[in-house]
Amino acid sequence: MTMNETTIDELKAAPSDLEVPGTMRAWTLGDPNELKLETRKTPTPGRSEVLVRIDAVAICATDLDVISKGPPALINGGLPFNQDFTPGHEYMGTVVAAGPGVDEYTIGDRVAVEIHAGCGQCRRCRSGMYTSCTNYGRNYGEQDKGHRANGFTTQGGFAQYAVNHVNTLVPVPDQMSDAEAALAVTAGTSMYGFTEMGGLLAGESVVVIGPGPIGLLAVAVAKALGASPVALVGTRANRLAIGGKLGADVLIDGKSEDAVARVRALTGGIGADYVMDCAGTEQTINEAIHMCSRGGKICLAAFPHGLASIDLAHAVMNNIYLYGIRGEGKSAVRRAMALMAAGRFDATLIHTHTFNLADLPEALRYARERVDDAIKVVLRPQH
Amino acid sequence: MTMNETTIDELKAAPSDLEVPGTMRAWTLGDPNELKLETRKTPTPGRSEVLVRIDAVAICATDLDVISKGPPALINGGLPFNQDFTPGHEYMGTVVAAGPGVDEYTIGDRVAVEIHAGCGQCRRCRSGMYTSCTNYGRNYGEQDKGHRANGFTTQGGFAQYAVNHVNTLVPVPDQMSDAEAALAVTAGTSMYGFTEMGGLLAGESVVVIGPGPIGLLAVAVAKALGASPVALVGTRANRLAIGGKLGADVLIDGKSEDAVARVRALTGGIGADYVMDCAGTEQTINEAIHMCSRGGKICLAAFPHGLASIDLAHAVMNNIYLYGIRGEGKSAVRRAMALMAAGRFDATLIHTHTFNLADLPEALRYARERVDDAIKVVLRPQH
Amino acid sequence: MTMNETTIDELKAAPSDLEVPGTMRAWTLGDPNELKLETRKTPTPGRSEVLVRIDAVAICATDLDVISKGPPALINGGLPFNQDFTPGHEYMGTVVAAGPGVDEYTIGDRVAVEIHAGCGQCRRCRSGMYTSCTNYGRNYGEQDKGHRANGFTTQGGFAQYAVNHVNTLVPVPDQMSDAEAALAVTAGTSMYGFTEMGGLLAGESVVVIGPGPIGLLAVAVAKALGASPVALVGTRANRLAIGGKLGADVLIDGKSEDAVARVRALTGGIGADYVMDCAGTEQTINEAIHMCSRGGKICLAAFPHGLASIDLAHAVMNNIYLYGIRGEGKSAVRRAMALMAAGRFDATLIHTHTFNLADLPEALRYARERVDDAIKVVLRPQH
Amino acid sequence: MTMNETTIDELKAAPSDLEVPGTMRAWTLGDPNELKLETRKTPTPGRSEVLVRIDAVAICATDLDVISKGPPALINGGLPFNQDFTPGHEYMGTVVAAGPGVDEYTIGDRVAVEIHAGCGQCRRCRSGMYTSCTNYGRNYGEQDKGHRANGFTTQGGFAQYAVNHVNTLVPVPDQMSDAEAALAVTAGTSMYGFTEMGGLLAGESVVVIGPGPIGLLAVAVAKALGASPVALVGTRANRLAIGGKLGADVLIDGKSEDAVARVRALTGGIGADYVMDCAGTEQTINEAIHMCSRGGKICLAAFPHGLASIDLAHAVMNNIYLYGIRGEGKSAVRRAMALMAAGRFDATLIHTHTFNLADLPEALRYARERVDDAIKVVLRPQH
Repeated sequence: MTMNETTIDELKAAPSDLEVPGTMRAWTLGDPNELKLETRKTPTPGRSEVLVRIDAVAICATDLDVISKGPPALINGGLPFNQDFTPGHEYMGTVVAAGPGVDEYTIGDRVAVEIHAGCGQCRRCRSGMYTSCTNYGRNYGEQDKGHRANGFTTQGGFAQYAVNHVNTLVPVPDQMSDAEAALAVTAGTSMYGFTEMGGLLAGESVVVIGPGPIGLLAVAVAKALGASPVALVGTRANRLAIGGKLGADVLIDGKSEDAVARVRALTGGIGADYVMDCAGTEQTINEAIHMCSRGGKICLAAFPHGLASIDLAHAVMNNIYLYGIRGEGKSAVRRAMALMAAGRFDATLIHTHTFNLADLPEALRYARERVDDAIKVVLRPQH
Repeated sequence: MTMNETTIDELKAAPSDLEVPGTMRAWTLGDPNELKLETRKTPTPGRSEVLVRIDAVAICATDLDVISKGPPALINGGLPFNQDFTPGHEYMGTVVAAGPGVDEYTIGDRVAVEIHAGCGQCRRCRSGMYTSCTNYGRNYGEQDKGHRANGFTTQGGFAQYAVNHVNTLVPVPDQMSDAEAALAVTAGTSMYGFTEMGGLLAGESVVVIGPGPIGLLAVAVAKALGASPVALVGTRANRLAIGGKLGADVLIDGKSEDAVARVRALTGGIGADYVMDCAGTEQTINEAIHMCSRGGKICLAAFPHGLASIDLAHAVMNNIYLYGIRGEGKSAVRRAMALMAAGRFDATLIHTHTFNLADLPEALRYARERVDDAIKVVLRPQH
Repeated sequence: MTMNETTIDELKAAPSDLEVPGTMRAWTLGDPNELKLETRKTPTPGRSEVLVRIDAVAICATDLDVISKGPPALINGGLPFNQDFTPGHEYMGTVVAAGPGVDEYTIGDRVAVEIHAGCGQCRRCRSGMYTSCTNYGRNYGEQDKGHRANGFTTQGGFAQYAVNHVNTLVPVPDQMSDAEAALAVTAGTSMYGFTEMGGLLAGESVVVIGPGPIGLLAVAVAKALGASPVALVGTRANRLAIGGKLGADVLIDGKSEDAVARVRALTGGIGADYVMDCAGTEQTINEAIHMCSRGGKICLAAFPHGLASIDLAHAVMNNIYLYGIRGEGKSAVRRAMALMAAGRFDATLIHTHTFNLADLPEALRYARERVDDAIKVVLRPQH
Repeated sequence: MTMNETTIDELKAAPSDLEVPGTMRAWTLGDPNELKLETRKTPTPGRSEVLVRIDAVAICATDLDVISKGPPALINGGLPFNQDFTPGHEYMGTVVAAGPGVDEYTIGDRVAVEIHAGCGQCRRCRSGMYTSCTNYGRNYGEQDKGHRANGFTTQGGFAQYAVNHVNTLVPVPDQMSDAEAALAVTAGTSMYGFTEMGGLLAGESVVVIGPGPIGLLAVAVAKALGASPVALVGTRANRLAIGGKLGADVLIDGKSEDAVARVRALTGGIGADYVMDCAGTEQTINEAIHMCSRGGKICLAAFPHGLASIDLAHAVMNNIYLYGIRGEGKSAVRRAMALMAAGRFDATLIHTHTFNLADLPEALRYARERVDDAIKVVLRPQH
């Protein structure tokens, strides 16, 4: 393990070897929490697919769920615990092979990846909502509908190579480090939330609750799009400080302060135009509702497990809309990457730790236990 | 009291006298539930206002709240119990006088009215969201911001005359009865809900929960816009039967059937594209969430008082959006009236009882206690 | 040839034989205007594709261009004259075979078809704009991008069978005749135009210029969505009369009347909210601009070849938007079919003549020369 | 006259005297091109209005038209030459008095102003489209509809004071100079154009044609919103150079280069996602159409007088939409100001010359004849 500050330059110096070996190392999930580093046949891209040499993969809280409990949709009985596969979905790398029908990318292109390639033939996919594909997870066996969700229902990124549909690829600018590019999916999730609420943030008031990775980059994206003021509500001083560096105009300590009252005061009593809740607790959702202005909008980017006691009456009486978002749809990763490429914010402020492929279990422990206040832990599969 | 079927023709024969008397009869609310029929000075319209002779006014469940508890926003501490004023907001009538700046209407025009005239100068009003006016209720005293909500914060319709801003008026076609026109606000609320969810319903699946007035006309509006299939969930057979007459393709008895399972079966397991919950109970909101498709949308047109235990996790994991609507914004009444004028549905199917002005207390009792299965009770202020 | 009125019932009685013969009859285009009826191998559906037995195919004005000059995009130098293939794109039929990955349809399902299956991997397709696929026409050879446009760049409908991507299919209700179903693409084009202009037509004023097939069904779709008033501008009395039967409130003879003045008078001097120009001449486009209200919208569903002298100054000064539409995107055919299935209008009013497959040249002559005032000429490939 | 660089600081040091004198100096337009500096009664704000002490007013090309030919709408016969009034509409200043109903601003607040206050009661205003008010110019006499357009149909900014409706005000941050704040309307016009085309520019390709004030700030706004790449087409090297400073990634000399070919090459042959034409010639509009991608969008922010020979066929065949914009609607000035306040671009790069109030004729000459390559000429009414 090396600390973030010593590794950014190093990460940029990706291995230049584009030859594809016949086998690769990949972590395989067996029973819950049972991960094995195996040597497997390097996969071959099919039609409209490329093979990506994975240069960096970040660990997401959802990975921890996938490894211990199964994919989120499991909760609804939709998906079984997915085993004998490789998890990991926040990765980037280099195109090293391409299947038929691909002329969008060439060998050597650096790419970040979105998680979802929709089936392309359900009504949601047909309208551009590929993260809401109604054939989610139906990519096996007789009735393979083509839906892919890297590291959820198909082979993911805790490996040296992975096959990706071209629709999931986003070009990475030359000057951007591998580690930064691996954070594009996180920024893209924040961007997707704002997009679904209308996307026109310049001069609008925004509150972000929960300074985890998505929340911190939500602050950054909101500022980049011109939102003002942007307030961040959190409970840990160091996280709030990072939010300040990413542009938050107001930092609110949710433990010692009444966040709703602070936001009301900030906005002349009217409440915030947009609230993005990235904490997903019963308390924060109700705070989001109460700090939102009449006619305002709330994005739910996280959620409490099971039922929660919510003041929907306030939302209805005040014409408030709530947008529960799944993933990073509508090309939001591509759009977030444009802001990152333009240097609008430094996403690497949330990258705290780096590990080599063989150290995945330790990397997961850092992420799970927030060792050393880990925010984003990044793995280097080629090391 | 006269039954609906015998009075529709009669209601159409509105008094033709357009002269404005100096005084009028009007019900005045004192303390909660204390209503007095008084003789008052007939009001004079100001700039951009008209005086409407009220020919029909329907009773809404919210009127019952306003009279016994105060305006809904009271719950948030925003508004005191409004007394010494006239409630009633679902009315129609005839323009009998116009203030300066009015050339949109002339004396003798029949009009239905929307409830809200926004302040016109807050950010919500500026963007056309006048029912989400952030100056709601600020229409008194020193800092009169001009917001009006007929029968909530300004003089309403349980009277012979009322002043209305021209923005709240919608023309009534000649052939339409007074009673039918008075239902345009109810249809407009349903229309507003569908509008906010995108408005393009042709060929989409819609479920309406709760066959009250808004729910029944939501069925009618959805069918008029081409939705297919449209299912109605309710618990009383006669209400469901009216829903069937208004076009519901599928009637689901929420007591004896598993509404979520029925909707899933109807939609090939995918769930409904749009759900409009007009019942507003904890159970129906959760049903709405569980019967909604991935990427689908839910309108909350009613709400449980206080906190409710809600499965928001399912909504977030399935990219479902919830639209809490207040009132009948974005000219939805005008748009609903266009469908009614074209004969797309017979709104009078929900009009069950008719009373004269002096009988308001009895009319309210019919509405409150659902005497004789009352749905919409209409008052004739000129009788 | 048989007249429309005698064949509607007959068309409904589609042959029930679902067995797929090894060969079929198909018209093949050689040099411009050189069509041969050949016997060819019946094609086999690939992944996500079905084989459709064509039961009815309507002739579109664009077919005449494709046969004599090449696909429209040719004008921009994009596409060569497409030969050795089968034109025809407005067809419907019965699913008789399905490739891998298809569970949306089963053998025996009656379907209408959209023209375009996008490549699914360009940015327009990714956002649901498959008729604006930037890989249009790239479906041959080494870099096959998967884009299909039936009868333009891939085998079309003047044949007994055709392969279709499932994305292009729209279910046909049992009670609908084959001939009516074949008109769904035309209605879908009208629907697409209104969708792109916002789609919320209830109570809005609409003018349609040009009572050809798209214009006449634009009147029908606008009325079905609640537009009021709907005016139709044309030059031939019998076409205008059909527009009246399809619901036009006002018929304007563009030869004897000043259409702009009529529309201004109809709308209190303000102009129409929406204008759809289906005539596509310099004169009609300028009329559309001048009869459109400030802040109104114009759909250009047809166009003059080459440069046209246009008063764009008026459009800019009045904040008017012009939507040039290509085809029938965003699932508009499916949405139009929902209105047709609900009986909102009788599309068969524009179906004037019917021919058997062998009589294609004569059918084309009827369409081209408007013999007997032909509007829509329908071919029955199984006869 | 003083050059820009010496006056920015000085302009910031606004006179601190908030007392309102009984009379003021104001330029009055008589016959075309006849301007007189008069002493007039300082106006009094009415309901929802404030009195603004004008601290800076920029000259717009439209002012030159208003002064010599009359307001633009005159071309349609809608408005007579407006005389005996004060032109000037791109101003900012300090609130020095407020009428009834105003609590949004207090004395001493610095504000920039939008041009249009809609009537508030036509259908366009009701939906937030106040620059498309159908009562445009109807603010005089018996049927005053309340519409105001500063410097077009009501008293404007070439004076020491002007009355403004609160809806037209946008707060100016303390650190911003008067001259910069006066450019907010120009930036707002650019912002409005992008808003109407969808507003989500991050990662999209944008071409701006015509490096006048609106075009140059369109480059700045597009970059601020994350567009990439942004190309600017112009004919004068110094203007292009300013565009480069404002962020343009590619500068195209429209005289020596084939702009369409350059844009096609830049975008992989596909064309630009968005084109904003700020030159408004027949040639540039056709270039805009030909360099726009299939499914792309074009904003027409300028226009040729009279008819122009346009290739609309290309637009229709490629599903291209054209947005003719009038002014700076939908709170775009407020949104542009947010980007300026955040320092996203330096609008003062287009401010070239500064004059005192008495020197208006000379200032107009600089603007009209582009003396010393004048771009934005700013007047200081308090000097």
